[in-house]
Amino acid sequence: MIEEKIIELGYELPEAPKPLAAYIPALKVDNLIFTAGQLPTVKGELKYTGKIGADLSEADAQKAAEISALNCLSVIKSVIGNLDQIEQVVKLTVFVNSADYFTNQPKVANGASELIAKIFGEKGKHVRSAVGVNELPLNAPLEIEMIVKIK
Amino acid sequence: MIEEKIIELGYELPEAPKPLAAYIPALKVDNLIFTAGQLPTVKGELKYTGKIGADLSEADAQKAAEISALNCLSVIKSVIGNLDQIEQVVKLTVFVNSADYFTNQPKVANGASELIAKIFGEKGKHVRSAVGVNELPLNAPLEIEMIVKIK
Amino acid sequence: MIEEKIIELGYELPEAPKPLAAYIPALKVDNLIFTAGQLPTVKGELKYTGKIGADLSEADAQKAAEISALNCLSVIKSVIGNLDQIEQVVKLTVFVNSADYFTNQPKVANGASELIAKIFGEKGKHVRSAVGVNELPLNAPLEIEMIVKIK
Repeated sequence: MIEEKIIELGYELPEAPKPLAAYIPALKVDNLIFTAGQLPTVKGELKYTGKIGADLSEADAQKAAEISALNCLSVIKSVIGNLDQIEQVVKLTVFVNSADYFTNQPKVANGASELIAKIFGEKGKHVRSAVGVNELPLNAPLEIEMIVKIK
Repeated sequence: MIEEKIIELGYELPEAPKPLAAYIPALKVDNLIFTAGQLPTVKGELKYTGKIGADLSEADAQKAAEISALNCLSVIKSVIGNLDQIEQVVKLTVFVNSADYFTNQPKVANGASELIAKIFGEKGKHVRSAVGVNELPLNAPLEIEMIVKIK
Repeated sequence: MIEEKIIELGYELPEAPKPLAAYIPALKVDNLIFTAGQLPTVKGELKYTGKIGADLSEADAQKAAEISALNCLSVIKSVIGNLDQIEQVVKLTVFVNSADYFTNQPKVANGASELIAKIFGEKGKHVRSAVGVNELPLNAPLEIEMIVKIK
């Protein structure tokens, strides 16, 4: 159902991105799944790069946030097999590669939060922190980690 | 008891701040409550803004940290009804909007940690990360998220 | 066994670092242990300082990450008594003090992740976020927090 909803909304669940290094992309601990920080990569390549407020518009940054959120779902699926197992999206932490004076991290992070809300409805109501950072891996515009509770 | 203690200490538990965007301010997962990142807002307005070490003194930053901590408690209360349900404050993550060369993030974060200790005593002994960041939403001087365990 | 493995690999489990401020270094919540953010200190002194990509090489930064990871284990031991109680290393969050244009946070964080993998084998397979930040406490080159699950 959830995967059909993703397609119905005009999105595609990507292949689970491979970690950049010596860790795993998602882990189940009791009834929680923790993801590694996900960059906005498509098939292993960053779809967007650079600092928001300088190299990248807010609109493009929101699209990048959508991609990172889908990558989170993809790595979660790689652990639990089926996104319908998700009972509740718990938390997103959104690290935003911010140019000097860029203070609209919440709007950027909404790219992820609003997509999660559309996909999951009530089950998608999550808490969130959105913070600026000065640099991110591979010059990615943002990095998102997710915690979900499963049934 | 806890809310009386807050008043006795000379503080006030604010109205729960509204999220800036498409997320909820706090969420219960089993016996844990996770908050969204809380800015030092009072009635929807930032009480302090700017970078610590440039625009803001450490003393004012500590007051800002107190406000963010109280906002965390307020959004937790909005989920559990009564702060006496808190068995243990588990973790604070404190993101400090830092001017170049400002490296006293722990002292700033103590504004929050010491207030939590005064309010909760043994139950307030938490772990904490305090890190500098270059930008925060609305140019807030800090953002704090909290995890607590409830009974 | 785990502590022998640490020695066998040529490392030493340090004395648990004292918190810089009003918090505790590690906390047990049900079957999880959360650590406070750990700096690369040895006997209370930072072994490395400065921004990676400017003041510090990637190789030294990886050594700093090893020290912070060992400090995480040390504070966990201070709570559970014996590292053999660890069933799974769950998550590392690695905040990297990054010079402008330094985007190799994953390589730096591998200093920690690879050591954890060597020490714990399958039980060491964790998720991870590595992000750049512009300043850290005491001008530390990185700060690492860890979550583990115990038996």
